[in-house]
Amino acid sequence: MKKLIVQKYGGTSVADPSRIKNVAKRVVETKKKGHNVVVVVSALGDTTDKLIELAHQITENPSEREFDMLVSTGEQVSVALLAMAIHKLGVEAISFTGAQVGIITDTAFTKARIININTKKIEEELEKGKIVIVAGFQGITMDQDITTLGRGGSNLTAVALCKALGGDVCEMNTDVDGVYTADPRVVPNARKLDFISYDEMLEMASLGSQVLQARSVIFAKKFNVPIHVRSSFSDKPGTFITKEAKTMMEDVVISGVTLNKNEAKMTICDVPDKPGIAARIFKVLADEEINVDMIIQNVSRTGFTDLSFTVSKSDLNKTLRTAKKIAQDIEADKVIFDEDIAKISIIGVGMKSHPGVAARMFDILAKNKINIEMISTSEISISCVISKAKAELAAKALHTAFGLDKKEKK
Amino acid sequence: MKKLIVQKYGGTSVADPSRIKNVAKRVVETKKKGHNVVVVVSALGDTTDKLIELAHQITENPSEREFDMLVSTGEQVSVALLAMAIHKLGVEAISFTGAQVGIITDTAFTKARIININTKKIEEELEKGKIVIVAGFQGITMDQDITTLGRGGSNLTAVALCKALGGDVCEMNTDVDGVYTADPRVVPNARKLDFISYDEMLEMASLGSQVLQARSVIFAKKFNVPIHVRSSFSDKPGTFITKEAKTMMEDVVISGVTLNKNEAKMTICDVPDKPGIAARIFKVLADEEINVDMIIQNVSRTGFTDLSFTVSKSDLNKTLRTAKKIAQDIEADKVIFDEDIAKISIIGVGMKSHPGVAARMFDILAKNKINIEMISTSEISISCVISKAKAELAAKALHTAFGLDKKEKK
Repeated sequence: MKKLIVQKYGGTSVADPSRIKNVAKRVVETKKKGHNVVVVVSALGDTTDKLIELAHQITENPSEREFDMLVSTGEQVSVALLAMAIHKLGVEAISFTGAQVGIITDTAFTKARIININTKKIEEELEKGKIVIVAGFQGITMDQDITTLGRGGSNLTAVALCKALGGDVCEMNTDVDGVYTADPRVVPNARKLDFISYDEMLEMASLGSQVLQARSVIFAKKFNVPIHVRSSFSDKPGTFITKEAKTMMEDVVISGVTLNKNEAKMTICDVPDKPGIAARIFKVLADEEINVDMIIQNVSRTGFTDLSFTVSKSDLNKTLRTAKKIAQDIEADKVIFDEDIAKISIIGVGMKSHPGVAARMFDILAKNKINIEMISTSEISISCVISKAKAELAAKALHTAFGLDKKEKK
Repeated sequence: MKKLIVQKYGGTSVADPSRIKNVAKRVVETKKKGHNVVVVVSALGDTTDKLIELAHQITENPSEREFDMLVSTGEQVSVALLAMAIHKLGVEAISFTGAQVGIITDTAFTKARIININTKKIEEELEKGKIVIVAGFQGITMDQDITTLGRGGSNLTAVALCKALGGDVCEMNTDVDGVYTADPRVVPNARKLDFISYDEMLEMASLGSQVLQARSVIFAKKFNVPIHVRSSFSDKPGTFITKEAKTMMEDVVISGVTLNKNEAKMTICDVPDKPGIAARIFKVLADEEINVDMIIQNVSRTGFTDLSFTVSKSDLNKTLRTAKKIAQDIEADKVIFDEDIAKISIIGVGMKSHPGVAARMFDILAKNKINIEMISTSEISISCVISKAKAELAAKALHTAFGLDKKEKK
């Protein structure tokens, strides 16, 4: 059956002319199977970083409009080169900028949101039998100003195009061959998932998985666009992300274990236990643009409480300065922090219908003599902050206990 | 008086961030004098060459549409960086691609011709008090395909914008400080001209001067756009190119001496003197895309003639092969060639009203024992092919004899 396939290739997949030729070959193979192909590409390798470096040699604080004008050239170079590489293989292809295919965005330069896509031009070229190549990461406002979509923008372009064109699948070609039950570098027995639901993928993304940014998954979920995460360098199928992957794994309670070592824990000791104090603390942190992840409050002695929270390690110094000032203002005691923590999470839509998953997780950690410092839960995930030294042990133990290890090894 | 000034800066003027900052300073100075300023910039230094190199790593024969898509990114980078540099000086500026300001061209990719310019957007931004920066060298077709204008395209953009906007002057900021009576590297006494006419500038460009390509001068002449050729690195006035510069130099017979050492002379000996033979020869050369410059025919013996012509040295081998084949076909004798020639030319609208200029030129060359091999004339120029070894001597002698040497030295 003839399908419409949107393929996205990231910067490492098109880092140099030889890799671009490899991508051209893959695209042409898909086309020769009889499908219509729309390709979305990112800028070559570190091109975007080089352009940003140029801008910073001019000014430390470039205008966002001009910044987008500058960095959007990276993807324009990629699409032209990929079109040439496909022509070289004797197949018709045509490249477009975001502006040319009418990817209309709002005016939030550097992090614009797609408002509408005019698919007429792409559909005309597909009907002529051509492979259509679209510059990722970029769009244009109603006033014809060039915008970029922010981090992970090319993924977003691909998902949005797939939705607008009514495509059958949006292939994310990347440098890993799919979504794994855990990071294979941490858990050698990690298994590639054939299927995963949008919700699970979202939790994974926000809990530390680097495969796909949450933003494009949210978009895909909203419009029910099927995603196929696969390797640019292999022909094997990767992981399909769809609405309801549960049918494929009815007896699977959790689908993945993630580990995040990039957070630090901070505690403001002996905070006066008065209404409005917590709100005041987190308002000040938010004003400083510090992103707080987990929050725990422990009553220590009457009228006082210890308030702990985690932040990204890159914000540690700023947070420490801010927290010390807050502590003084609200007449709390000292501020202590711990960098040697890790957040271990288990994710799975299965836990909705399986009670006792949290208890089982705590039990497994306890049996491995791993102390739990903080806990937080969502509908389909449970996260624990533990000592960094025990992180790998915890990941492996949970992975095995929840039946995620490779079948062959069982 | 408030003027509208179009300033063009070439690739060497914006080769790196520090030079871009220098251009920003110059642009802002002009703006602060109370003028409206529209700036046209080329790609940074060797950016275009690097992009072409990338394309050639993919295919030796890239699609012209995709080629334009690729190389047009160079100017887009420049305009964004220049806008940032102007902002840094606290002055408002906005950058545009050729597409954004509606520089509409035909579909002759890599050498497109401007059909129309929609000035609305530029005028709106000028009215807001902004400096408007436009990417040179590029345009867009009615179908929204990106095109480039070919060699010297940024100059053409500047002249065309000046015409469309009704600008007062089109400043060509370059790495020389004006148009000289001769190449100062050859004739140390060469003098910068304050004024020159379009026609003279055109002859200079086609006879070897590198300052401006003929194409933008033809356009400027057609629409009577005043051009000011000046240095990017100095504040001194350069050379104004206008319709009629004669009034400024009534007793000046010639305004410049040019030298071209890039041609070779070829002679097909003993060509049968029959009607249609010359046409046949030059038709074959034209079919091979060999550009013939001067042509001379000498009757040597009854019924036969020696046919000499000059071609660019880069075409020498191809021309030799073709000429030998022609000679055989038309039953001529051998083909001989001479690479050691130079074409010396004198240019001046003054010669229209001064008879005997040619005779005086020949006399000066004769007095310097320089043999003339070929002669060609136009309404405002006379060119002689001489031995390359005598080229510098001829240039200096003519420059002095026609009164072009620096006033101070007289």
